Amino acid sequence: MTERIETLPINDGFRMPGEYEAHQSCWLLWPERPDNWRNGGKPAQKVFTEVATEIAKSEPVTVGVNQTQFENARSHLPKHIRVVEMSNDDSWIRDCGATFVKNDKTGEIRGVDWVFNAWGGLVDGLYFPWDKDDQVARKMCDLEGYDYYHTDDFILEGGSIHVDGEGTLITTEECLLNPESGRNFPNLNREEIEQVLKDHLNLQKVIWLPNGIYLDETNGHVDNIACFAKPGEVILAWTDDTSDPQYELSKANLEVLEKETDAKGRKLTVHKIHTPSPILITKDESKGVDQIDGTLPRQEGDRLAASYANFYIGNKIIALPVFNDPKDQDAIELLTKLFPTRKVVPIYAREILLGGGNIHCITQQIPA
Amino acid sequence: MTERIETLPINDGFRMPGEYEAHQSCWLLWPERPDNWRNGGKPAQKVFTEVATEIAKSEPVTVGVNQTQFENARSHLPKHIRVVEMSNDDSWIRDCGATFVKNDKTGEIRGVDWVFNAWGGLVDGLYFPWDKDDQVARKMCDLEGYDYYHTDDFILEGGSIHVDGEGTLITTEECLLNPESGRNFPNLNREEIEQVLKDHLNLQKVIWLPNGIYLDETNGHVDNIACFAKPGEVILAWTDDTSDPQYELSKANLEVLEKETDAKGRKLTVHKIHTPSPILITKDESKGVDQIDGTLPRQEGDRLAASYANFYIGNKIIALPVFNDPKDQDAIELLTKLFPTRKVVPIYAREILLGGGNIHCITQQIPA
Repeated sequence: MTERIETLPINDGFRMPGEYEAHQSCWLLWPERPDNWRNGGKPAQKVFTEVATEIAKSEPVTVGVNQTQFENARSHLPKHIRVVEMSNDDSWIRDCGATFVKNDKTGEIRGVDWVFNAWGGLVDGLYFPWDKDDQVARKMCDLEGYDYYHTDDFILEGGSIHVDGEGTLITTEECLLNPESGRNFPNLNREEIEQVLKDHLNLQKVIWLPNGIYLDETNGHVDNIACFAKPGEVILAWTDDTSDPQYELSKANLEVLEKETDAKGRKLTVHKIHTPSPILITKDESKGVDQIDGTLPRQEGDRLAASYANFYIGNKIIALPVFNDPKDQDAIELLTKLFPTRKVVPIYAREILLGGGNIHCITQQIPA
Repeated sequence: MTERIETLPINDGFRMPGEYEAHQSCWLLWPERPDNWRNGGKPAQKVFTEVATEIAKSEPVTVGVNQTQFENARSHLPKHIRVVEMSNDDSWIRDCGATFVKNDKTGEIRGVDWVFNAWGGLVDGLYFPWDKDDQVARKMCDLEGYDYYHTDDFILEGGSIHVDGEGTLITTEECLLNPESGRNFPNLNREEIEQVLKDHLNLQKVIWLPNGIYLDETNGHVDNIACFAKPGEVILAWTDDTSDPQYELSKANLEVLEKETDAKGRKLTVHKIHTPSPILITKDESKGVDQIDGTLPRQEGDRLAASYANFYIGNKIIALPVFNDPKDQDAIELLTKLFPTRKVVPIYAREILLGGGNIHCITQQIPA
């Protein structure tokens, strides 16, 4: 039912659709590790349940879970959500899961199984080991019955890329071209990295933003700072506060986007989505996280990488992280305007943010 | 996608089809526990792979596997067999897995999740704990998207029953009416036990054979001694050797079968399938099994409960355990005659037998 394919998606007529194209289903993993999620993961599990429930209103949802949490996850999640055992080291399926590509002629779906090394391996990774995470992509394909491509020794997380479905990808130099990030660069140079992306996702153009969100522990994943609203239109996390380090980071990204054209030769329209005021870890929150050597600590006062750009585009909804911040409403209004066929569902997502990411990071769509 | 149903299958129009009716697919679990399977389960894994491969020739096969064995199972099993994580305490999915029932009008399939207590719990069970086994039925239903019935505190293993699909069930008193067996009797009496079976499998008649196979550690599961070849025809494990304790056990069963009628009022035709000569555990085999307090020991010289009746009826094959015994050929010929639309595939199954069961015990069909 599942086979590793040794050719390349681009040669087989497969492409990665934009997230706004129709989904067949969505996957999540259940959070639990107590050295990342406070209070044994219980507050996060509540929010993951809310995210899964909202997404399940317009597409089938499967939640993968470690054996020890099966009963608990099953009892929290609504019955129409499928729960399956899928061992993992943490719950960021956007990053460790498969990226799915589609052949528009035959309708066939295949997976791309990138190497996952916990955001930087022994150089700059966030925990060790990550072997269970690295198996997730293949297990998803096996369970769903999809053949899959494997990138040998090419390391990538799904959250470090966004595509428009028409041949254009956006990513960040901070992540993919960072020699300290424990990934492919400089073993592979920019052109070689572009080629792997083009071959596997069927692209003609890679747009390199310099930066991710300030202090993003993933080395600046693009999915926390920018995404496509549709081909030719990019949403960019932004602040007008020139004293915030985020200002210069976003401004440098904007300058690139204003100059660039996409694979079809279009100029890009940029929509600014304003970040909330800085959100810091409280003492209580910090105390709820197990202190473990080798896992990124969660210390009181640390600024979190909060961004409204980290939303999930479902078939009929936008699952939008909000933070009880005055900017929440601006984000809701902007996305309501940009996605007129979808309902924007705000979800108070501080608990996901505390774990190091947000709604987009914990979801992975399979195209219809 | 999956929901516990609080009504009864018989009232909802669901029945358990005969194993010879069309299958949608077959499930197995991957063997590994070193206190039951010799040499770390490696010889058994080879035979399980052979069984799965043969069955997969005429119906889709899924193999559930503990996380630690995923890579190994995936590498041994052919690509067209689906491998999914499913934690288990041992690999007897006939006994711990769901029994599937079907609504002939709507075509809907549902599971029946019996309580599993490792063949007798703390009274007479074969190992402790068995919590992962007991979750298998529900996980199968969740993964496949079937609703399921649950029998509250009624304990049953799928291998202790066989049905003809037309309202008749055969089972053994040695297992279901044994007050020392750590199951329902005598908390429930014979009539009450019959009622649970009738309600959940849609039966009008239960036929009670006195005995299972000599020394069968399951307390005499029927699937090691008798099964239906089709409605009205029963295959019974037999020996002509009057000095073998098996002789009296089989003879008592024959006497019942010759007197009984089935749910449709038919007399039963009995086909004798002759057991192989006694098979004993060798010193080498015994030494390969971890010695653990609380798990049934595998001692040199112990007689194994070998029987040809423990075969699996696939869509187009009979997966038949054989033992390099002169009686192998008789069994092949008998089953070739009784199942004219199927190919009898003999599989040298001593390694499964050493674990305490055989091919029927390690398989579980889902009706088409």
